[in-house]
Amino acid sequence: MAENIYDYAYDLEKALRDHPDFVELKNMYDEVNNDPSSKQLFDNFRNMQLELQQKQMTGQQITEEEAQKAQQQVQLVQQHETISKLMAAEQRMSQLIQDINKIVTKPLEDLYGSPE
Amino acid sequence: MAENIYDYAYDLEKALRDHPDFVELKNMYDEVNNDPSSKQLFDNFRNMQLELQQKQMTGQQITEEEAQKAQQQVQLVQQHETISKLMAAEQRMSQLIQDINKIVTKPLEDLYGSPE
Ligand SMILES: [Ca+2]
Ligand SMILES: [Ca+2]
Repeated sequence: MAENIYDYAYDLEKALRDHPDFVELKNMYDEVNNDPSSKQLFDNFRNMQLELQQKQMTGQQITEEEAQKAQQQVQLVQQHETISKLMAAEQRMSQLIQDINKIVTKPLEDLYGSPE
Repeated sequence: MAENIYDYAYDLEKALRDHPDFVELKNMYDEVNNDPSSKQLFDNFRNMQLELQQKQMTGQQITEEEAQKAQQQVQLVQQHETISKLMAAEQRMSQLIQDINKIVTKPLEDLYGSPE
């Protein structure tokens, strides 16, 4: 009997959940979030990133003070072993999801042509 | 031997390519694009949609004339059997991709929480 397309999706979901990159991501995520000072540092960093992105998107000037503060936060986060590992794991996961997505939606790319 | 995650992605890609909704989408897409007058009508409709969307996103007013022209185009397209079928197939495909995506990225949703 032919498998339903959703069965293939669930198989892929399981493979993602068991993938070493996802396991590492989850471990680092839990480690950062279960340590209040790491969590605080990471939350501050993420909030600052979001703020700067929103300013850029709405065409607002970023002050020299903000740029310096951002630089300092980046350094703090880079020196923090667990947060560095979490961010590296997030990047690998993002790449993996992108690769998977490119494979799965290939039929649509073939039909419509690749996006510019 | 455990399968590679990409093998699961390729299995899902094949299931999508063989799915009746994709086959129907491809047939209707080819039918519309191989008939010059259908293609012209559909291209005009899509271009108009994009133009109105861009106006809305940049906060520009849509004139009464544009709104009327848009309404006429919608009617023409709805009365066109092949284009109607193509648009219905595109909607089903979009829903299918959304459902698949939700299944596959569930591990990340479990970790980060669902987006608001
Ligand atoms: Ca093409
Ligand atoms: Ca959660």
